[in-house]
Amino acid sequence: MYLERINEPADLRALDHDELDALAGEIRDFIVAAVSETGGHLGSNLGAVELSLALHRVFDSPTDAIMWDTGHQAYVHKLVTGRRTQFEQLRQEGGLSGYPSREESRHDHIENSHASTVLSYAYGMAVARDTGTDDHRHIVAVIGDGAMTGGMAYEAINNLGHGKRRVIIVLNDNGRSYAPTVSNLAANVQGADEHEAHPSFTDRVTDKLSHALTDIRLNPVYVRRQRRLEDFLASLPAVGPQAEKAVEGFKAGVREFLQPPSFFEALGVRYTGPVDGHNIDELEQAFHNAIELSAEGPIVVHVLTQKGRGYSPAEDDDEKHLHDAPVFDPMTGPPKAVPTGYTQAFAEGVIKAAERDDRIVAITAAMPGPTGLLPFQEHFPKRFFDVGIAEQHAVAGAAGMAMGGLRPFVAIYSTFLSRAWDQVVYDVALHRLPVVFCLDRAGITGPDGASHHGVYDMALLSKVPGMRVLAPSSAQELHQMIDDAATLSDDGPVVIRYPRGSARQVADDQVGSGLSARQVQAGDGTLCILAVGRMLEFAEKAAAALAESGIDTTVWDVRSCAPLDPAMITDAATHRAIVTVEDGVRDGGIGMMIADQVGAIAPAVPVASLGTPTQFIPHGDPKTIMARLGLDTDGIVLAARAVLDPDV
Amino acid sequence: MYLERINEPADLRALDHDELDALAGEIRDFIVAAVSETGGHLGSNLGAVELSLALHRVFDSPTDAIMWDTGHQAYVHKLVTGRRTQFEQLRQEGGLSGYPSREESRHDHIENSHASTVLSYAYGMAVARDTGTDDHRHIVAVIGDGAMTGGMAYEAINNLGHGKRRVIIVLNDNGRSYAPTVSNLAANVQGADEHEAHPSFTDRVTDKLSHALTDIRLNPVYVRRQRRLEDFLASLPAVGPQAEKAVEGFKAGVREFLQPPSFFEALGVRYTGPVDGHNIDELEQAFHNAIELSAEGPIVVHVLTQKGRGYSPAEDDDEKHLHDAPVFDPMTGPPKAVPTGYTQAFAEGVIKAAERDDRIVAITAAMPGPTGLLPFQEHFPKRFFDVGIAEQHAVAGAAGMAMGGLRPFVAIYSTFLSRAWDQVVYDVALHRLPVVFCLDRAGITGPDGASHHGVYDMALLSKVPGMRVLAPSSAQELHQMIDDAATLSDDGPVVIRYPRGSARQVADDQVGSGLSARQVQAGDGTLCILAVGRMLEFAEKAAAALAESGIDTTVWDVRSCAPLDPAMITDAATHRAIVTVEDGVRDGGIGMMIADQVGAIAPAVPVASLGTPTQFIPHGDPKTIMARLGLDTDGIVLAARAVLDPDV
Repeated sequence: MYLERINEPADLRALDHDELDALAGEIRDFIVAAVSETGGHLGSNLGAVELSLALHRVFDSPTDAIMWDTGHQAYVHKLVTGRRTQFEQLRQEGGLSGYPSREESRHDHIENSHASTVLSYAYGMAVARDTGTDDHRHIVAVIGDGAMTGGMAYEAINNLGHGKRRVIIVLNDNGRSYAPTVSNLAANVQGADEHEAHPSFTDRVTDKLSHALTDIRLNPVYVRRQRRLEDFLASLPAVGPQAEKAVEGFKAGVREFLQPPSFFEALGVRYTGPVDGHNIDELEQAFHNAIELSAEGPIVVHVLTQKGRGYSPAEDDDEKHLHDAPVFDPMTGPPKAVPTGYTQAFAEGVIKAAERDDRIVAITAAMPGPTGLLPFQEHFPKRFFDVGIAEQHAVAGAAGMAMGGLRPFVAIYSTFLSRAWDQVVYDVALHRLPVVFCLDRAGITGPDGASHHGVYDMALLSKVPGMRVLAPSSAQELHQMIDDAATLSDDGPVVIRYPRGSARQVADDQVGSGLSARQVQAGDGTLCILAVGRMLEFAEKAAAALAESGIDTTVWDVRSCAPLDPAMITDAATHRAIVTVEDGVRDGGIGMMIADQVGAIAPAVPVASLGTPTQFIPHGDPKTIMARLGLDTDGIVLAARAVLDPDV
Repeated sequence: MYLERINEPADLRALDHDELDALAGEIRDFIVAAVSETGGHLGSNLGAVELSLALHRVFDSPTDAIMWDTGHQAYVHKLVTGRRTQFEQLRQEGGLSGYPSREESRHDHIENSHASTVLSYAYGMAVARDTGTDDHRHIVAVIGDGAMTGGMAYEAINNLGHGKRRVIIVLNDNGRSYAPTVSNLAANVQGADEHEAHPSFTDRVTDKLSHALTDIRLNPVYVRRQRRLEDFLASLPAVGPQAEKAVEGFKAGVREFLQPPSFFEALGVRYTGPVDGHNIDELEQAFHNAIELSAEGPIVVHVLTQKGRGYSPAEDDDEKHLHDAPVFDPMTGPPKAVPTGYTQAFAEGVIKAAERDDRIVAITAAMPGPTGLLPFQEHFPKRFFDVGIAEQHAVAGAAGMAMGGLRPFVAIYSTFLSRAWDQVVYDVALHRLPVVFCLDRAGITGPDGASHHGVYDMALLSKVPGMRVLAPSSAQELHQMIDDAATLSDDGPVVIRYPRGSARQVADDQVGSGLSARQVQAGDGTLCILAVGRMLEFAEKAAAALAESGIDTTVWDVRSCAPLDPAMITDAATHRAIVTVEDGVRDGGIGMMIADQVGAIAPAVPVASLGTPTQFIPHGDPKTIMARLGLDTDGIVLAARAVLDPDV
């Protein structure tokens, strides 16, 4: 066993290549075993084993900064930087983070920020290094091909190239990004029009490259051959200005041939590769070369890797079930993931709506599976658009579609919509366009930590002029809201936000409609609880618990967070006290808006508003987190007693 | 006079090219005269005269959609679509918008959204068209070279190219973007390290193009020559596999030569140009060609224009004083714009801070002049970074700089920071990095309308964990806050937000410090007014007016919007009633946070919170707008009387 000997990166340098290959195998076994116990990012980490080992052999972390975009692929990095024994608590509350974490290690720099950011960090760290006096550290940024579709990666490359910053970019290309096989899957597996499918970055920029071509460039005879070809060109007879231009063109062509033009080079960043991402020797050589070449400016090392490498259930995981895997049996791999709960309800509802209204189209930003849009894509391949990890374009593109007469449903995680706040406000809402935002993973999401909780959606989107913000409390309500949104969007955009996980199933008479709130039970005027979305279930239980001590409670399902139903406000204001509860940020949230409106008509009625605090909430089990924040039955009961009798 | 005959685009088609040139001259005179009376975007519109005329002759608006990125260059478009007589009221309240406006005309599509969005709209409209049955409209998107540095433009190009969408992109290249002379100015005029200057998009992607090369490609003998060259290549003797590869390389080289590779083509979008943007004939030919070629997919027509063309004060406007010009004398042009008010105070303050602390660097997103950073750039050329119109990268890049030990001051307009909300939260704040955001043009800004008011900054940024949000009420306070921010940022990010326009000048003893609020005057416990930033001046006047009717008022300068000073809250809670006033969105704003905190200790004290409504606020004079919204002395007096005596 070699793995047990690796406590810091320097230990890797004592191994020869056979030993490293053995170590790689051990690491794969370790990761499969660990993730099968805790859940986690499997495919991306299995694909980055040799890459991580080679990086840590060539570069001297943490003096040299090795940074991972999104951090989905940092388990091997964690293993070789002294955290092997902590994997049992991976993604558990208080345990090892599923992402790099600065609290855990000096080898970690970026915590779990959103995709496509690493090149900007690298730019900034290079600026800081170059502004210092005697700092010569290397800055290495690892970014996946999927994240290259994000606009800010382009912004960073443009600035890196222009500033000739000494940065080594590792393009970790598994040809799949978030969405499984990008355009090919859509075309081959699902019969979709490939033009509508996800535009792979590397499809676009490297299609002229072949391994053969690369072989030539990496070959030691490169310089001699280049010289011979140039001599040959120079020997061509000159026959006038046009011919001279032609000869110049030939020369340029030769240069391009030997040093292929690419997207990167157009932006001033040199390109090398592709390199076999599972050959440690080849990787190390490429990194050594890159170090030398980076003296003149930024350089990309294009590394080809296989997601899930070495574990057949993950290698075959075309639909990305193992991108973020649940707990599973390592012998069989996890079962085929199918959307559940609210995601499933959305998947069904949007198809039904689209069957009735042929203006409805669906847009995803590289998340067709997790958002539940794969069945929609199967039903309506020409009405489905995966734009890549490109939330800004997804939203402004939806604005354009709506201007052209369509009804786009943009399905996106709550936390990722924050990438497109500007576009939601100034492109969609300013034009009052019929765009429906379907925000999955709203509220506390759990194991992915601070950057993946969807706690800002209600507080922010309720402040957008004309925006209607709906939160369903059951699968049936979500269906109702999808139906209503098709009509409500006549007057401008609509948001429907719903949590990860199971959805309540209710009878038809327990569903509201339109922008109305729904009174779930009427009390005697003592206490009124106004609950948003999934919090309704806790509110009802809290009411039952309070009834046992004689407090007869009115309960409303808020349903429409913006605008608030005046009937609900008027009724709530007749009570002695009010409790509001939402699974989003309390400050500036829906509870505060309710308190403000109640205050205008009944200033003496106290309102206790429950929501998430203005803090970054670390990873952990969602239920545990919510209980700790007082966002459960007990929390509501406690708040109700306190607001009814503040002196106790 | 030809201009008077032009009431709709079709009228342009009756003119011959001499008449069109005469018309172009008339239009320039008209625009200079109009903008000298009202202020407005001068240089960009003078540069787009022939371009607009050619577009409206070739395309059939509004059947064909002609869309303008940002809308800074749409005056000519407005003139030839029937709005000539309305220019007297340009940018005045109730008058002609300075941007396209769907209320004004069927020829307008996108209102004044932020930069780099037009290609996403075009994508969406093309999708909608292609989803329809018999719609064959052309979709034309005009985008400046500066806006091409924005990441979402790249996201859209990637999707346009991948989807082979029939869209014509007009790259209106004046080589200057927002920031005057891009890299060259910085290098030549100001002695800056050119690597640190603004990375021009066209510098990067078109440096291989020359007019000569283009001439060949546009030449009718193009196809014949291509064939001859390919024949020549085919005639080369084959001497083994390596030679064959070489020949293939030659062929590729020839193709590249005749059809130059470019950034666009790497992303699947064809490129033609450059075309002389002041030659209507050449422009029309290019557009006709583009129509033909667009049948196979998106195409870029690269048009070279001169900003300010035909009006020498604007042609010479290297520092962009006439980008958004004030009222001026058309004979002399406007005086050299120098930063005034808060912008000037920032310009001075940040230089002083940087003299004391060599970790301080400054970042702008293509706005070095308007944000007041030009003097900083002169003082510290190596510590100044213009990243282009790329707010996401500006913020995440600042995060990287801060990780590397620097203290970045990011100077940006309040409304444009909404482009980087995600990066502020998950890149800067999550890592508690010492980044200082200096937000100019906060609050109601005036003539640019809905998308340029900076009303969201306080409501949003006060909800970011750990963020300190400061609002100065005078130039001296801004200096103090800049000094304090250098220290406060030890604990994480700081925001300082200040309005456009003149800054109050106060004595040294009228300045607070750190995160403390400042009590400006103490009353008798009847009324307490808590004022944010520039609203303090109105609050003091309101207190004086109320004193005349016997109401003795306490006034606080809030200074720190987040966190709120507990001493201020405690004191306010001792009053009979409280009025808060801020020049940002009321819902979820600082007033509501104050009401919430006061409510926790003194639930019976009524709090009236004044702020901007949850509405899009159109263009107009800032003072008039604020008076209409009740955000002035009278508005505060009115609110005070109402909250003290609700029954009156």
